[in-house]
Amino acid sequence: MNGMNSHGTDFAVPQGFKLAAAAAGIKNEGLDLGLIYSDRPAVAAAMFTRNAFPAAPVILCRKHLEQSGHSVRALLVNSGNANAANGEEGMAAARRCAEELASIAGCTPAEIFISSTGVIGRPLPADKICAAIPDLMRTMHGKTGDEFARAIMTTDTFPKVAGAEVRGAKILGFAKGAGMIHPNMATMLSFIITDARVDFPDLDNALRKSVDRSFHSISVDGDTSTNDTVLVLANGASGVSLSPAAFAGKLLEVCQDLAKKIVRDGEGATKFIELAIEGAPSDEEARHIGRTIARSPLVKTAIYGCDPNWGRLICAIGNAGVPLESERIDLFIDDIPLNGGDLKLASERMRSKEVLIRVSLHSGTGNARVWTCDLTEQYIRINADYTT
Amino acid sequence: MNGMNSHGTDFAVPQGFKLAAAAAGIKNEGLDLGLIYSDRPAVAAAMFTRNAFPAAPVILCRKHLEQSGHSVRALLVNSGNANAANGEEGMAAARRCAEELASIAGCTPAEIFISSTGVIGRPLPADKICAAIPDLMRTMHGKTGDEFARAIMTTDTFPKVAGAEVRGAKILGFAKGAGMIHPNMATMLSFIITDARVDFPDLDNALRKSVDRSFHSISVDGDTSTNDTVLVLANGASGVSLSPAAFAGKLLEVCQDLAKKIVRDGEGATKFIELAIEGAPSDEEARHIGRTIARSPLVKTAIYGCDPNWGRLICAIGNAGVPLESERIDLFIDDIPLNGGDLKLASERMRSKEVLIRVSLHSGTGNARVWTCDLTEQYIRINADYTT
Repeated sequence: MNGMNSHGTDFAVPQGFKLAAAAAGIKNEGLDLGLIYSDRPAVAAAMFTRNAFPAAPVILCRKHLEQSGHSVRALLVNSGNANAANGEEGMAAARRCAEELASIAGCTPAEIFISSTGVIGRPLPADKICAAIPDLMRTMHGKTGDEFARAIMTTDTFPKVAGAEVRGAKILGFAKGAGMIHPNMATMLSFIITDARVDFPDLDNALRKSVDRSFHSISVDGDTSTNDTVLVLANGASGVSLSPAAFAGKLLEVCQDLAKKIVRDGEGATKFIELAIEGAPSDEEARHIGRTIARSPLVKTAIYGCDPNWGRLICAIGNAGVPLESERIDLFIDDIPLNGGDLKLASERMRSKEVLIRVSLHSGTGNARVWTCDLTEQYIRINADYTT
Repeated sequence: MNGMNSHGTDFAVPQGFKLAAAAAGIKNEGLDLGLIYSDRPAVAAAMFTRNAFPAAPVILCRKHLEQSGHSVRALLVNSGNANAANGEEGMAAARRCAEELASIAGCTPAEIFISSTGVIGRPLPADKICAAIPDLMRTMHGKTGDEFARAIMTTDTFPKVAGAEVRGAKILGFAKGAGMIHPNMATMLSFIITDARVDFPDLDNALRKSVDRSFHSISVDGDTSTNDTVLVLANGASGVSLSPAAFAGKLLEVCQDLAKKIVRDGEGATKFIELAIEGAPSDEEARHIGRTIARSPLVKTAIYGCDPNWGRLICAIGNAGVPLESERIDLFIDDIPLNGGDLKLASERMRSKEVLIRVSLHSGTGNARVWTCDLTEQYIRINADYTT
């Protein structure tokens, strides 16, 4: 789906933050290590994977945030290796990287946030990572996050950056993740930095609400991973204090922008699909129905084939297990009715690269938007041959 | 996967049953209507889809079984049209077919079992079905179920029949379903007939236990449908009474045979995958873990590509949400260790059309077997263009 949209990466870096990227040799080629540094302690809120086997950096960072009282000075992230399912050795490797960065950055290891993405079950080359840290610290700058965004890519085909500005405070967000994406934030990393002044409870609250309506509202293939992380850092360097609602609103914008970019880059995808669920008993149930549709391979292959097979939509809705008052369900592609409508016209409209499916349930006032992509032969090709 | 196994259909028909098939014009060509008739009332136990929008025949048959006290004289099943999402008209069409058959078979409509499979949301051509009933009743015979098995096929590439005999009593089972298969019995129909003498509580109990370890232990694509039905009819014509355990054991064999045939015919599949889960806290949790692996597109594409990407297995196990005592998980392809093993050897073994994956969890004595298939480009092609 390259070229479908302009995937701009040209957003201003919030004050007090510096970024860097390096080719540390973890991947065979290209940037694979990124650093974000704050010149003062930043308030940190994070959400992690719910997978029962979280990767070593996830386990370590949960501890670090507790120990440091949710304060972070620097973030180190590598692609090419997930450091997951590596047992005690994986934990030791993650700790070693954090200690190395802490000693150079002049902070405690607990103020370091470590993140990894890539293949599961291979030893993390901590030597290569530690060797690259001095260079990262020397070359970091506050001009652009473009190279950082590239360093965290795996099967992504374009870097994912989003930004916002509100009354002099800036928000800048990065994300990676193209497959293995599902509501529980599968192999998805997102790092968001802001120079707004926000205290921890407001930051944490804003993050949780935003993630529900962004990263938790997308699906590429229904799989979830061991490494998912969303981190937001607020260092207050702008001196601007926003109302919690104003900050949360802007954070949601950035998160939704990033989440949609992940879907647009869905492995093998040819279409971006927006599901608008209306008239559910509650917003949460609307979102649940949207997610159930978004993970149906039959719906996703039908959309790929421009096949207005609305029976599969009904079937997917029925599988969500949400009790509905009305037996009547109205389905639309844009404004074209699907059930009882002109299916030839609907099929033509489905040829677009952006497909809006509206589901009207007549069972309440709950609404949700969920984003997904089609399922194609190319997804199979990409994933049938990843490690070997 | 044709030719991979001999999919024999040559099993003896239990006493007192007759079968027939016809090309009623519901599909564009070929057999699309099947009849099973018992010369005396048969005890009936059934399980249906858990989809919130069950098809008209499912709603009707639930009522019929209640009204008749679980007694069935004849079963009428069509392929090519699911009679789902058709509202009141769909119910009327199903009722009309049942009434027509009842009047010719000389029983009450409540003793008729109706079933449909095919495209959702298109009016059922009840005229064509009713017109074909007299011919079905005239041509039915007790020689073979081969034509009946063919009449219920949709995207199936071969008819699915299984049989067993125990101390003079026969069991004969039919199934259809190739995509949309997941533990909740998605677009899957199975009809099993026996001339053993079994009362309703034993029949119902044996069916529920067998389905858990057969049709509920397979997955093709994780999608579930509006029409799933498993029906077992026992007419007692052999005069043979079996112990409940002996009957249940044979029924399980027939159900597992049919369930595996469905997986072998998985849409676009090139490999039959058996997942053997050992050392889970309980059998049920072992089955749940097996099902979670079986619905992971990343695992299924890796197996398609003969890629021993065991990290995806670990990840899928972690997504099952089952608390495990041990952090150690041992994974094998046959007897070749995957984590810490010779991955080249494992990849070579994966070239086989039958792949056994063993998961040893070291967290208890719970075991399960789950069957699935790989996910291929061909699955996408079949499903991107089904209705149009």
